[in-house]
Amino acid sequence: MTSSRTEVEQSVFLRACRGEPVPHVPVWFMRQAGRSLPEYRRVRAGIPMLEACRRPDLVCEITLQPVRRYGVDAAIFFSDIMVPLAAVGVDLDIVPGTGPVVAAPFRTQADLDRLRPLTPADVEYVTEAVRLLVGALDGTPLIGFAGAPFTLASYLVEGGPSRTYARTKALMYGEPDLWHALCRRLAEITREFLRVQIEAGASAVQLFDSWAGALSGADYRRYVMPHSTAVLTGLTVPRIHFGVGTGHMLDAIAEAGADVVGVDWRTPLDVAAVKAGPGRAVQGNLDPAALFAPWEFVATEVRRILAEGKAAAGHVFNLGHGVLPETDPDVLGRVVDLVHSGP
Amino acid sequence: MTSSRTEVEQSVFLRACRGEPVPHVPVWFMRQAGRSLPEYRRVRAGIPMLEACRRPDLVCEITLQPVRRYGVDAAIFFSDIMVPLAAVGVDLDIVPGTGPVVAAPFRTQADLDRLRPLTPADVEYVTEAVRLLVGALDGTPLIGFAGAPFTLASYLVEGGPSRTYARTKALMYGEPDLWHALCRRLAEITREFLRVQIEAGASAVQLFDSWAGALSGADYRRYVMPHSTAVLTGLTVPRIHFGVGTGHMLDAIAEAGADVVGVDWRTPLDVAAVKAGPGRAVQGNLDPAALFAPWEFVATEVRRILAEGKAAAGHVFNLGHGVLPETDPDVLGRVVDLVHSGP
Repeated sequence: MTSSRTEVEQSVFLRACRGEPVPHVPVWFMRQAGRSLPEYRRVRAGIPMLEACRRPDLVCEITLQPVRRYGVDAAIFFSDIMVPLAAVGVDLDIVPGTGPVVAAPFRTQADLDRLRPLTPADVEYVTEAVRLLVGALDGTPLIGFAGAPFTLASYLVEGGPSRTYARTKALMYGEPDLWHALCRRLAEITREFLRVQIEAGASAVQLFDSWAGALSGADYRRYVMPHSTAVLTGLTVPRIHFGVGTGHMLDAIAEAGADVVGVDWRTPLDVAAVKAGPGRAVQGNLDPAALFAPWEFVATEVRRILAEGKAAAGHVFNLGHGVLPETDPDVLGRVVDLVHSGP
Repeated sequence: MTSSRTEVEQSVFLRACRGEPVPHVPVWFMRQAGRSLPEYRRVRAGIPMLEACRRPDLVCEITLQPVRRYGVDAAIFFSDIMVPLAAVGVDLDIVPGTGPVVAAPFRTQADLDRLRPLTPADVEYVTEAVRLLVGALDGTPLIGFAGAPFTLASYLVEGGPSRTYARTKALMYGEPDLWHALCRRLAEITREFLRVQIEAGASAVQLFDSWAGALSGADYRRYVMPHSTAVLTGLTVPRIHFGVGTGHMLDAIAEAGADVVGVDWRTPLDVAAVKAGPGRAVQGNLDPAALFAPWEFVATEVRRILAEGKAAAGHVFNLGHGVLPETDPDVLGRVVDLVHSGP
């Protein structure tokens, strides 16, 4: 273990993930690398999202930008949850202002047969970018990144973002065998995508099951949890597991595999800590929309969340969902400083 | 009291709302009158939504269609939550496939000054339509309909539908005085809109706070609940109070004023009954997307929900949100029959 590797292992972020004592609460932001930063908009200008994700120099630069600007306690690998699916040949695009759009939505066993496993050779640019980053980050931990089977399946089945997930649920309820086979395949792809990042040097991972909160807890346990468990079991680094609107099933999110349970703004962290169960850390949970309020309001919210986070075995400060594009980076900078200085 | 009025008061639906014994669980569906019905698409062809809402003959016909087709236990007044705002002069449209679009989103005190109170004269077509309906319904109860202050405010402030409610929350957090003044005005308008319907013969009301689930329970109590309480307190008919994704704050939804707490599909009704508190009925909560699954799956879900609903003082069977436009009406018909015949 190099001294930099030791430094990472003993970082405030990883200590908090493991529930060890920390000198201050660590902080990073979902989508900290992204459209809210002028330096991001500059380097992304004219480059489509999926192309950006395949250029190690650009991924490295974009991932580093918020670390430089804010001094956050962790970097998150810049990518898109659809990258591994594009890498195995799914015809899709990330449309600005819309999100992922899949050319031929998933319908049948034939679609499943076409969905091949992911190999490291499919994502060599990921390996290269992570290696570049680990060198450049100089002791700051890098969080690997992947979308969970349910959320990936929802994009494949709906063909794009959805408010109702009606087609996804119709498949899930109506053709459970095909649904489970799809999720097994997606779990293999996701697990391999995370393994590649860990192998190259990522020292934690976050699994984004962004839209799993559209399900009841019972349906989550029946149709989704086994596949997320298959992704998360036995990974060798701390695992953060997050979905929006999952307050009614944080217990299941935790059980599926989480050293750190990600929590949106709807559930206070002290309540979340109980649901997550003993020994688990929590991550969150400032409402991204609160950042548009005057600073005194933001500061009060940050202090409340720091106080509520004490109820858990560990606390990683974050927003309750991703940074909104219109967010003022200066406000995020002040949040980092406030979290670091303590309540 | 006429014999028809007595028949309505003793209807299975109103008995269930009041927590009285019933021969079978009553059932109706949110958006039962709407695009899923071919007879609806026929009469609406070429007529914009807001215009349709202002034509008593059409409102009467559309409201009656699902009662005729399904034999549901209640009709719900066909309208749009934006109707009272359009009636006081807000420049808005209901855009097919999008939803409400407000020409000049709400920003300042001047916008508030322009938002005048609603008088019965503004919505004479509502009075006329309700009277027509009460005559035509022949003993089936009519549920009055309105949007709650938060949900209306979100459309006014965002200018249309939103995924984040960032502008709404920015106003709420950043200019709480203006926010509360806006919600007070909206509460007056909503209360008057419901009062007009009750006066004309509606025998229950449902307040739709569709998007209140975007808030934490604490924020709901602080910024929204007083205004919904102002709408609901002292109404003379049973009140159903509903929002999507409100499992984390059903206690507050109930306290704000509810004889019947509407529940989406994420929270099992036996859990919801505890959160709603003793003496309150619950309404729900079949996932609208489940209707796309094979009948045996649907039937199993209906039976589960009927069993879970027994935990509450009363149960009104419904979906967990509105009927999706692609829904097969025959499946809804079978659900009604199954609910009526018992599990």
